[in-house]
Amino acid sequence: MTDSAKRVSPDRLREFVAAVYRSAGVPAADAAFAADTLVQADLWGHQSHGVLRVGWYYARLRSGAMRPVTGPRTVVDAGAIAVIDGEDGVGQLVAKHAVEEAVRRARLHGVGVVSVRNSNHFGACMYYTGIGAKAGCITLLATNGGPNMAPWGGMKKMIGTNPWSIAAPAGRHPTMIMDVAVSGVARGKIFLAQQRREPIPDTWAIDRDGFPTTDPRAALEGFILPMAGHKGYAIGVIVDLLSGVLSGSSFLDDVHGPYDPVNRSGAGHFFAAFDVEKFQPRAQFDARMEEYIARLKAVPVAPGHEEVFYPGEIEARNDARHRREGLLLPEDTLADLRRVAGEAGLAGFRLHD
Amino acid sequence: MTDSAKRVSPDRLREFVAAVYRSAGVPAADAAFAADTLVQADLWGHQSHGVLRVGWYYARLRSGAMRPVTGPRTVVDAGAIAVIDGEDGVGQLVAKHAVEEAVRRARLHGVGVVSVRNSNHFGACMYYTGIGAKAGCITLLATNGGPNMAPWGGMKKMIGTNPWSIAAPAGRHPTMIMDVAVSGVARGKIFLAQQRREPIPDTWAIDRDGFPTTDPRAALEGFILPMAGHKGYAIGVIVDLLSGVLSGSSFLDDVHGPYDPVNRSGAGHFFAAFDVEKFQPRAQFDARMEEYIARLKAVPVAPGHEEVFYPGEIEARNDARHRREGLLLPEDTLADLRRVAGEAGLAGFRLHD
Repeated sequence: MTDSAKRVSPDRLREFVAAVYRSAGVPAADAAFAADTLVQADLWGHQSHGVLRVGWYYARLRSGAMRPVTGPRTVVDAGAIAVIDGEDGVGQLVAKHAVEEAVRRARLHGVGVVSVRNSNHFGACMYYTGIGAKAGCITLLATNGGPNMAPWGGMKKMIGTNPWSIAAPAGRHPTMIMDVAVSGVARGKIFLAQQRREPIPDTWAIDRDGFPTTDPRAALEGFILPMAGHKGYAIGVIVDLLSGVLSGSSFLDDVHGPYDPVNRSGAGHFFAAFDVEKFQPRAQFDARMEEYIARLKAVPVAPGHEEVFYPGEIEARNDARHRREGLLLPEDTLADLRRVAGEAGLAGFRLHD
Repeated sequence: MTDSAKRVSPDRLREFVAAVYRSAGVPAADAAFAADTLVQADLWGHQSHGVLRVGWYYARLRSGAMRPVTGPRTVVDAGAIAVIDGEDGVGQLVAKHAVEEAVRRARLHGVGVVSVRNSNHFGACMYYTGIGAKAGCITLLATNGGPNMAPWGGMKKMIGTNPWSIAAPAGRHPTMIMDVAVSGVARGKIFLAQQRREPIPDTWAIDRDGFPTTDPRAALEGFILPMAGHKGYAIGVIVDLLSGVLSGSSFLDDVHGPYDPVNRSGAGHFFAAFDVEKFQPRAQFDARMEEYIARLKAVPVAPGHEEVFYPGEIEARNDARHRREGLLLPEDTLADLRRVAGEAGLAGFRLHD
């Protein structure tokens, strides 16, 4: 097969993923939305948060750990803030509802905050903060997740990758978006080093006895370290506090990750939307953002780099290219999608022509 | 002089710093508050943000870059949000006013946001988020500052250390506080390596030509790297956007730092307070925070560590010890305070008995 024949059309991929969700009892409109969030992550070039996750979410729906029909319940409704119970529904739909609700309250009060309990993993944070930014709000989202790091100085997995994102409208440019996890390195990178029999930097992980290690195997048996040492630990705890403690959801190692097929998640989220227009005229803000980006782009480029990017620019560029050329998915992911298709009664579905 | 005779009483140090501020025309109550913020940083063990800065602020007051009488002006007053103009007043007083205003709005609306323009450096973020936390609000503060880092992939100082802090009430425990800058390493650490003629890790800085370096001198002539690489860069830009762009203040390299004696600062800040009681009963939140801390403290300790600390715990412990034993200031700082005393007509003031 030629390289271009291997490429998958985002539309067809979206149809397939939606069909998988529908087969598990998710209503059609919800299934289409969840599918879009996953395909969008692939379009941005974030394959770790893309369709490779379909099988995980499908397993959670089939086991009953995640409920297919999502109807978030408002627990607290108090002016600029709300607390919402996701009731173990599909994380993507809970998050969509929450960000729309935060934006609605921001229109009325200048700022809107929605605290979410009993939700599920929802894919990439930047999908939802991007929705808020397109609606004219600087939007913040933080979420906890299943434990994968020890607290600083400790030896037990207690803190999740606990990502957080802030997105802002950027004038005539694509949305400015920051989206970072607090763990220093993705587990996948350590697996890769192990496969290639390469040592890893001694700042990535400690072994099971708590000592820094350059051996990928020892690192995988041990504990991944937070980004920037104790700083990443502190940010991770605060994200857990905002997402889990404040919402009345689970926290620390009581949260279960998306690759756990049987346990309810208990994940909590924190959304805040700030309506730009309430702070200054929108045209003025847009002009300031365009000036900001122009000044960043004008900085002399360091050796080994081709360009200075503003946060979110690389994703926007990947998105445009993938929409034009289609997506090239790893063979592992394609095999996994075929397996899921079989289980979901969609064996006849063709991703390629 | 014995070690205990060298120690300075926090009360006397506070009196001295307040007298310096008063000598530059700052009203007595404002001078006392500003003095407390600096001495408190020393009490927490953060000497980089403590009284060693008095001389810098004093020089700015004397040159007229910072105005001694602070009366922040409300520019936007819209429900849960406000925009305040610091009019180049004392940063500490602008920040005090802003956090109190954010808390007041949070009481009414569940959340209160105050965006600040034309302020000045205010010392440590955690002083102000701590005020919000003591008032029962989870409180966020972000601020921009004078440029000290290049954007990722670039070679021109454009982004400040741009610190941000979130603090929360923690039941019967001292406040839980995260307070981090986005630069990976303090310049002071590189100076120290240079004095000791030791190499530095190649992740700390790039040289003036943009190449990673282990030579402290080349690093000081070059560019300090952000914490966690491109992640720290993205967070730094977003902090600048919230603090500088949204407020209508200066941003990027138009902001001037506290050690610049002559230029107006242009620093902007972003405050958000979330009233815990509006989200869940306070007693329930406190119990959850106590459970959180107990579970962190129960994690087995890794070699080379004595204890697992929650964010803010080390500072609280330093504070209690220093209040008991007094502060031990570096000889450089004491010499600098004597110089300032001379300039301020306070040569007769005795820090020691």
